[in-house]
Amino acid sequence: MQIGKLSREVRELAQAARAASRSLALSGASARNAALERAAGLLAERSAEIEAANARDLAAGREAGLSAAMIDRLRFDRRQMDKTAAGLREVIALPDPLGTVLAASRRPNGLELQRVRVPIGVILMIYESRPNVTMDAAGLCLKSGNAAILRGGREALETNLALGRVWAEALGAAGLPPASVGIVPTADRTALDALLEMDDVIDLVIPRGGEGLIRAVAEKSRIPTIKHYKGVCHVYVHAAADLDMARRIVVNAKVQRPGVCNAMETLLIDAAVADRFIPECFRELRAAGVELRGCERTRRIAPEVRPAGEEDWAAEYLDLILAVRVVDGVQAAVEHVNAWGSRHTESIVTADRAAAEQFLAGCDSACVFWNASTRLADGFEFGLGAEIGISTDKLHARGPMGLEELCTYKWVGRGAGQLRG
Amino acid sequence: MQIGKLSREVRELAQAARAASRSLALSGASARNAALERAAGLLAERSAEIEAANARDLAAGREAGLSAAMIDRLRFDRRQMDKTAAGLREVIALPDPLGTVLAASRRPNGLELQRVRVPIGVILMIYESRPNVTMDAAGLCLKSGNAAILRGGREALETNLALGRVWAEALGAAGLPPASVGIVPTADRTALDALLEMDDVIDLVIPRGGEGLIRAVAEKSRIPTIKHYKGVCHVYVHAAADLDMARRIVVNAKVQRPGVCNAMETLLIDAAVADRFIPECFRELRAAGVELRGCERTRRIAPEVRPAGEEDWAAEYLDLILAVRVVDGVQAAVEHVNAWGSRHTESIVTADRAAAEQFLAGCDSACVFWNASTRLADGFEFGLGAEIGISTDKLHARGPMGLEELCTYKWVGRGAGQLRG
Repeated sequence: MQIGKLSREVRELAQAARAASRSLALSGASARNAALERAAGLLAERSAEIEAANARDLAAGREAGLSAAMIDRLRFDRRQMDKTAAGLREVIALPDPLGTVLAASRRPNGLELQRVRVPIGVILMIYESRPNVTMDAAGLCLKSGNAAILRGGREALETNLALGRVWAEALGAAGLPPASVGIVPTADRTALDALLEMDDVIDLVIPRGGEGLIRAVAEKSRIPTIKHYKGVCHVYVHAAADLDMARRIVVNAKVQRPGVCNAMETLLIDAAVADRFIPECFRELRAAGVELRGCERTRRIAPEVRPAGEEDWAAEYLDLILAVRVVDGVQAAVEHVNAWGSRHTESIVTADRAAAEQFLAGCDSACVFWNASTRLADGFEFGLGAEIGISTDKLHARGPMGLEELCTYKWVGRGAGQLRG
Repeated sequence: MQIGKLSREVRELAQAARAASRSLALSGASARNAALERAAGLLAERSAEIEAANARDLAAGREAGLSAAMIDRLRFDRRQMDKTAAGLREVIALPDPLGTVLAASRRPNGLELQRVRVPIGVILMIYESRPNVTMDAAGLCLKSGNAAILRGGREALETNLALGRVWAEALGAAGLPPASVGIVPTADRTALDALLEMDDVIDLVIPRGGEGLIRAVAEKSRIPTIKHYKGVCHVYVHAAADLDMARRIVVNAKVQRPGVCNAMETLLIDAAVADRFIPECFRELRAAGVELRGCERTRRIAPEVRPAGEEDWAAEYLDLILAVRVVDGVQAAVEHVNAWGSRHTESIVTADRAAAEQFLAGCDSACVFWNASTRLADGFEFGLGAEIGISTDKLHARGPMGLEELCTYKWVGRGAGQLRG
């Protein structure tokens, strides 16, 4: 395909999504839920077609030498379809976020003023291999009245196009514009670059994937972009910590699922308890397969640990590796977090309320916990009912983003001829 | 000054603002209010020094051939200082936005979860000639616990530096870091470009000024930017309008202050009432000095009006000029607004509730009014108590932005050892 034609084609797709977003903003929750229900149903009815498309992606991926892990992420089988359909039905059961009056007042001149929650409009999702995102993310966008443009990975294109046909049929059956979900029919960078310039048509970009992808998108995009660069999360074991609780939290935060963004990457231990805490904690971490890297003071207590440097304080291992640093007091812990963290999630373990509050107030992060595992920073754990991502930005949405964070608001004023005096 | 040295200097200023923002986030409202009060007091005490600096800017501006209007905007005399001090004292009287618990829940695992309002951090304000912005904007940033980096126009540099000394002294007197307000000591573009790349140090950019400035900043910035490109606001006179009310609203929206963003730029008249509405309304607009430009159907009723084209539908005149278009019904009005408007403020005049609600829901704009002048889209009119700007973006803040919109939130979880299962 020619580059010019290709850019034109994705521009038309985006324009169609913009037009569809106008209808979606005015649609009722029942129509949007009906589309989600039909899509869930079609995943079962069309499973053979979807599996065939996925098989073509898998074959091409194997031929291209994708790793076993990547092939695994690319697979979209009956079990995945059932899980995805169940997820869509959970989203259906969530309350409609739209139309909520967020604030209301009667102005002195009699104007009845409301802030009302409305959809953002058109959301461009950029993601990598997992095809389930094509269903999950579009489902959340539709539930919140937004049109979605989905740009998945090159390796999943056939599967994503098959899932796009599911969406088109489901939307049509519910009386909603099929263009409400647009699948970018190419993984060509030129097409993506064309989309990232359409700030008059697309309202929000959400890139999901590795830090490289997100930085590249954020740099190119003229459209507001919600970013999640990385999760360098900390647990700080304070001098007044219950050391048993601290050990359980540390092990859970590191080991329970090390490959995700809310797993702990650096453990900060107060100098006052380092002697008592380190030996047993390290034993348990090692038993769970964790490789330890420590500062000089850590290594005085545990000399077998390999030395940690600045690159470790900045590292998002996403693996069974843990950096450990001994610090002197809450202020030093907060300073380490603010200097080296990624503003994602931090936790202090202590029985001292004043120390806890100092830490909670001082850490400039989306989620701050007292006596709890960093792994709890999650849309479902927070009761949002869904999660489109976790923002480490401070604007618009911070931390786990659910349906409400896919919305904006408008000011609605109802008057009787009020003028400016 | 060498370019390398200059970039280094503004980077240091930004780093100092970042450090200051950590203290501000933990500061009490009384300290922040004390700084504002001291700054208001210093405007009177230091008026001679400030006027001398302003006189140097005015002389240089005259020498550089600035227009009378620009010279007027640049002037910062005793009267302006008194007004600015009064404005700061109004901000002091507003409630502290920080620490508010926006939502709270006890999770099934016992975690006590809160969303708490906190400052954004470091805000870069970019603006043009008016030196009062140096006091007003910094005052709002400080009140909301944010550090401010202020980059005013080249022509106001001496005045702004004098006002920066006022801030430094006021902050010091209140026990807050003087670096909480940083004046960029140069109008060199290289220095600004260096700042716009510091996405690890600056959290938010708010450019205020002409569309060209804002587009240039938005394009360069790697930092989230809140934009207000322009205000192409509409009034739609519906078939069921009270035509007297409609005329009063139209005249107010166009004439009361034509040079501001919430003034009406295009008048949409329903074909059903065009014959009855146009003659008297146009007479009154002309009497107020308004130049009219109309579509073909308008000119059939008022042939003396000069023809309007697409450039008029897109125009932000900011002047006593009005584009007029006859449309067929609410849907056509909404389509015109969404196609040509700037998503700022629109108003429908009608006695028909259903028509009004269709317009309010259909217009994709920050503020939508029923039977009220577009001029009412304003932070003070909305009861925000202050206004840092009006956003035509949909992310983070939409429409008038007050103190709460200068804040973000963090998730605070207090537990008793909760783990992820």
